[in-house]
Amino acid sequence: MTHPEKKTGRSRGEEWWSTDIIEMSPGVIRLRGYEIQDLIGRVSFPAMIWLMLRGELPTERQAALLGIALGAAVDHGPQAPSIAIARMAATCGVGINSAMASAVNVLGDVHGGAGEQALAFFGEIADAMDGGLDLQAAVSDRLDRFFREAQGYVPGLGHRFHPIDPRAPRLLEITRDFAAEGVIDGRFAGIAEAVEAEVARRKGRRIPLNIDGATAVIYGELGFPPPLTRGLFVLSRSVGILAHAWEQSQRSERNKGPLPREWLWAYTGTPVRDL
Amino acid sequence: MTHPEKKTGRSRGEEWWSTDIIEMSPGVIRLRGYEIQDLIGRVSFPAMIWLMLRGELPTERQAALLGIALGAAVDHGPQAPSIAIARMAATCGVGINSAMASAVNVLGDVHGGAGEQALAFFGEIADAMDGGLDLQAAVSDRLDRFFREAQGYVPGLGHRFHPIDPRAPRLLEITRDFAAEGVIDGRFAGIAEAVEAEVARRKGRRIPLNIDGATAVIYGELGFPPPLTRGLFVLSRSVGILAHAWEQSQRSERNKGPLPREWLWAYTGTPVRDL
Amino acid sequence: MTHPEKKTGRSRGEEWWSTDIIEMSPGVIRLRGYEIQDLIGRVSFPAMIWLMLRGELPTERQAALLGIALGAAVDHGPQAPSIAIARMAATCGVGINSAMASAVNVLGDVHGGAGEQALAFFGEIADAMDGGLDLQAAVSDRLDRFFREAQGYVPGLGHRFHPIDPRAPRLLEITRDFAAEGVIDGRFAGIAEAVEAEVARRKGRRIPLNIDGATAVIYGELGFPPPLTRGLFVLSRSVGILAHAWEQSQRSERNKGPLPREWLWAYTGTPVRDL
Amino acid sequence: MTHPEKKTGRSRGEEWWSTDIIEMSPGVIRLRGYEIQDLIGRVSFPAMIWLMLRGELPTERQAALLGIALGAAVDHGPQAPSIAIARMAATCGVGINSAMASAVNVLGDVHGGAGEQALAFFGEIADAMDGGLDLQAAVSDRLDRFFREAQGYVPGLGHRFHPIDPRAPRLLEITRDFAAEGVIDGRFAGIAEAVEAEVARRKGRRIPLNIDGATAVIYGELGFPPPLTRGLFVLSRSVGILAHAWEQSQRSERNKGPLPREWLWAYTGTPVRDL
Repeated sequence: MTHPEKKTGRSRGEEWWSTDIIEMSPGVIRLRGYEIQDLIGRVSFPAMIWLMLRGELPTERQAALLGIALGAAVDHGPQAPSIAIARMAATCGVGINSAMASAVNVLGDVHGGAGEQALAFFGEIADAMDGGLDLQAAVSDRLDRFFREAQGYVPGLGHRFHPIDPRAPRLLEITRDFAAEGVIDGRFAGIAEAVEAEVARRKGRRIPLNIDGATAVIYGELGFPPPLTRGLFVLSRSVGILAHAWEQSQRSERNKGPLPREWLWAYTGTPVRDL
Repeated sequence: MTHPEKKTGRSRGEEWWSTDIIEMSPGVIRLRGYEIQDLIGRVSFPAMIWLMLRGELPTERQAALLGIALGAAVDHGPQAPSIAIARMAATCGVGINSAMASAVNVLGDVHGGAGEQALAFFGEIADAMDGGLDLQAAVSDRLDRFFREAQGYVPGLGHRFHPIDPRAPRLLEITRDFAAEGVIDGRFAGIAEAVEAEVARRKGRRIPLNIDGATAVIYGELGFPPPLTRGLFVLSRSVGILAHAWEQSQRSERNKGPLPREWLWAYTGTPVRDL
Repeated sequence: MTHPEKKTGRSRGEEWWSTDIIEMSPGVIRLRGYEIQDLIGRVSFPAMIWLMLRGELPTERQAALLGIALGAAVDHGPQAPSIAIARMAATCGVGINSAMASAVNVLGDVHGGAGEQALAFFGEIADAMDGGLDLQAAVSDRLDRFFREAQGYVPGLGHRFHPIDPRAPRLLEITRDFAAEGVIDGRFAGIAEAVEAEVARRKGRRIPLNIDGATAVIYGELGFPPPLTRGLFVLSRSVGILAHAWEQSQRSERNKGPLPREWLWAYTGTPVRDL
Repeated sequence: MTHPEKKTGRSRGEEWWSTDIIEMSPGVIRLRGYEIQDLIGRVSFPAMIWLMLRGELPTERQAALLGIALGAAVDHGPQAPSIAIARMAATCGVGINSAMASAVNVLGDVHGGAGEQALAFFGEIADAMDGGLDLQAAVSDRLDRFFREAQGYVPGLGHRFHPIDPRAPRLLEITRDFAAEGVIDGRFAGIAEAVEAEVARRKGRRIPLNIDGATAVIYGELGFPPPLTRGLFVLSRSVGILAHAWEQSQRSERNKGPLPREWLWAYTGTPVRDL
C-alpha cells in the first residue's frame, strides 16, 4: 500500500477503494500483476486461491497440498448447523447464493474457528522453539498454560462424534509425504503429534488429532496465518453447503423446519394466563 | 431417494434429514459412497466439487476444465457490490465468514445470475437442435424470440466496461482445445459463437461473449444444469471475496463507508420543515 | 430525486449516494425534513417506521393500526425455518446480529412472501373495481383466472397447521373497527372476505383467511404497496427471531443441529464403493 | 426450562427445540402464556417486543420509553456500511429480506456494539455503587481502570462526525422526564452524566454522550441486559435499512458499486509482470 498524499475529487474516491489485489482498465484484468488471460489455463484452482490470498504463485506441489486440505473438509453432514441451514434456506424461496450465505454466516468462532484456534496454538509453540526451547519443552510449557487458563478440549484434538476422525491420520500421512519430498518442512506436523502425545501422557488416554488440527497443520506448513485458516475452511465447506442446498432444491419441500412436519416443539414457559 | 414408508420416532426424525451425499457413523465418513480417507490426496479439489454436486467422480481432464472455469471468475474488483460489501463488512467487527456471507448473499439474479441465464439460453438452442433444427436455424429462432420478448443484452454477450472481456476469448480457446482432445464435444462453444455471430450480423457490430457466457459454455459442456452455474460462480467469486475481506482486515479502518470519510451524500428530499 | 447535471469530483461521489430519506451535517440529523430531536419523544415507533418508508407522518390512529399488524406476526415458533436458523446460529459463535441476519435472509418468496402475494392479489381485484366491476364480479373474475393459471392455495387463505389461524379473525375485527372509526375505508377487508366466501362457495368448504391475508388487508388499507408488505413482515418477525436467538444464547449448547445430538440422518445414496 | 428426564423418539425431538417463548397447537398460538388474539390490538408494538424478550408485559409508560429509544436510532445515512450495503444489495437481484440480511449482518462489535459496550460500562459502575461506593468514586475508579487498560473513546462518549449528537441530549431530557414521573429511577442517566463530567474534567474538554450512550442509558433504566442492547439496535436500524433498500429498489440502477460507475479504484500492488 502506498502512503498517499492528500488527494481530492475522483482520485480521492479511487484511493478510498485502493487494493493490491486487482488492477483493471477496459479490456485489461490483472491479478497481483499477472494478466488474467495468462493465468487462465496455466494455474490450478488452488493456485489461484493462493495467489489471491498471498500475492505470489505457489509451486505446483504447494498448490496440490492446499487443494488436498480444501478437499478434505467439504462436508460433515446435515447435523452441522451450516448444512442444515443451507437445506432449510433452499426451501424458503431464496436464490442458491442466499441459501449459501445464511449457511456460511454461521461458520463463526465455535462452528468454523477451531482450525484458526489450533493453528494459533501450534504457532505459539513454534514461536517458543524459535526462542530456543526444544519441541518437548515448548509443547509442555504451552499445555501447562492451557490447562491453567482454559477448559475443554486442547485446540485441534478430540471429536464429540468420531473416536478417530478418519480424515486426520490420512492428512498427517500426506503431510509427512510432502515433507519427505521437501515441499514443506514438517514442523507443524511434529508439533501436532507432540501435542497429541503429551496430552495422552497427561490424561492417560489418547485424544486424537481432529480435522481442524490436521488442516491447521497443513495451512501452517504452507505459511498461512491463523485467521486465513477460517477463510479457507469457508471456501472448503462452501462446497458441501452448495451440494446440500442443491440436493434440497430438487425436492418439493417448502419451508422445511428442523423436525418432521407433524411434530412440534416442547413448550416450557409460563402456563396459559389471562391478559 | 428412497420412498419411505411411514416411520415414527427417531427413525422418522432421521428420515427427515435424509441425503444422498454423505454417510456417517463414528469413525466413518463417506461421500457419495467413497471413504473420505480414500478420496483425500487422490482427487483434486475441483474433482471433489464435482463429486459432491454430481454424485460421480469426473475424469482428471474434466476436473481440470472445471478448475479452469472456477479460477477465471474469482474477482472483478471492488466496484462490484459483492467485493465492496466484503471489504466494508470486514471493518465492522464481524468474523471473516460473516463478511463473506454478506457478500455472497448479493450474488443474486442480477449480480450472479448471468451465467445461469446464458446456459439456459444456450441450452434451449441445444434442445431445438435435438429436435431437428440445424445450428444456424436454432440460433436464429431463439434470437427472434429473444428480441420479440426481451430487451437489453442477449445472455452471455456484452460488457458495460470491457470492449472485449480478456477472460472470454481465452476460455473459448481452451474449450476448443479440450474439445479437440475429446474431453467435451464442443457443442456449447459452437452455439455461443453462432449466437455471437448472428447478433453481430443483426446489430451491425460485434457484441462479444463475456465471462458469464464463456463459463456457461464450459459448465454446459461439462453437463452442469443452469442453476448450478450460479452455485459454481459463488464458489469462484468467494475466493476474491475472501482475498478482499482479508486485505481489508489488515488495515485499520473501522466502519468503512462507500465514500471517503470526509464526504457525505446528496440529500434530495423534502426541505427542512417543522413537526 | 433531482435530475442531476453531470457533476465531477466530490459532488459526483456525493450524488452517487443521493437519498430523499436523511439529511446530515455536523450536529444535524433530519429524517424526511424533520429534525431528529423534534421527532424523538413525539412520534411512536410505528409512526417512525411509516415516516421512513412513506416520507410523511401518519395520523396517530394510522400508526396504531400499523403497530397492531406488526405485533401480530412476531413469531410462529421454532418449526419455522427462520426461527430454527436463528437458534442454531446463536450456538455457533457469531454475534446476535449475525444470527438474526441468517434468519431474516430466508424470509424469501416462500417463507416471507405470502403477504406480498396476497396484497397483490387483493389489489388486482381493487383495480378491477376501479375499472367498473362490482365486488362480486371482480372477485369472481380474479378467481377464475387464478384457478385457470395456478395451483395450490389462493393467496391469503388457508394454513397447513391451523384450521383457523387465531390471528386472522381478530385482525379482521380490528380492521372493521378502524374502518367504522373512519381511519381506513375497509375496502381490502371487504375484498378479502368476498374472496374467502367465493372460494368457500366453489370448494364447498371454508378455507379461512390466514395471517398473511389479514396483515395484507391492513397494509393495503393503510396504502402500503405489496413489496413493502414483505419488508414490514421482516421487521415484525425480526422480533421473534431476536427473542429466540437470545433465549438460545442463554443456554450452553454449541453447534446445535436440527436433531437431538445422539441422532444422525438417513443416508439414501450410493452404497459404499471402492475408489 | 424444565429439567427433562431422558426422552426418546418424537418427544425427544420436540424437547430438543423446547422454548419458553411460544406455545402452539392447531388453532392456538400463545406468546409467553397469553393467547395471541388477546394480545393483538391491546398491547403496542414496543410492548410486544418487550414481552417477547423479557417474558412479562411492560407498563404502558415503560413500553413508550422503549419505543422512543427504538425510534431514535433508525438511520444514520448511507455512509454507514449497513445502509450502503442494503442499497447495493437491492440492485443485485435479491429479495428485500436478503438486502436487509446482508446489512443487519454487519452490525457487529464495531458497527453495532457500541451501545452494548456502553451499557456494560455503566453497569459496572452501578455494581460498584451497589458495593458501597458513591457515584463519583465509582465513576472515577472505573475511568482510572479504563485509561489504564484501553485506548480510544470511553464507551458511549464522542462522535467522529457530530460535535454534539442531536439525539443524545434529547434522549437524556426524556429519560429525566420519565424518571420524574417514576417510570424509571434515573440511575443510569446519573451515571452517564457523571462519566461525561469526569471525562471532561480529566481531558479539559467535553466529549459529549452519543446516541449509543444515550440509548444504553434508557435500555439500562428499563432493565435490559447489555447484549440485548445490540439486539434492540438491530430492530431499530432495520427500519432505516428497509427504507433505504426500498428507496433504492425504486430506481433503475443495477449492480450499484460504491463509487460512480465511471470511476475505478486505485491499484497499489505489484506492477504488471510476466507469468
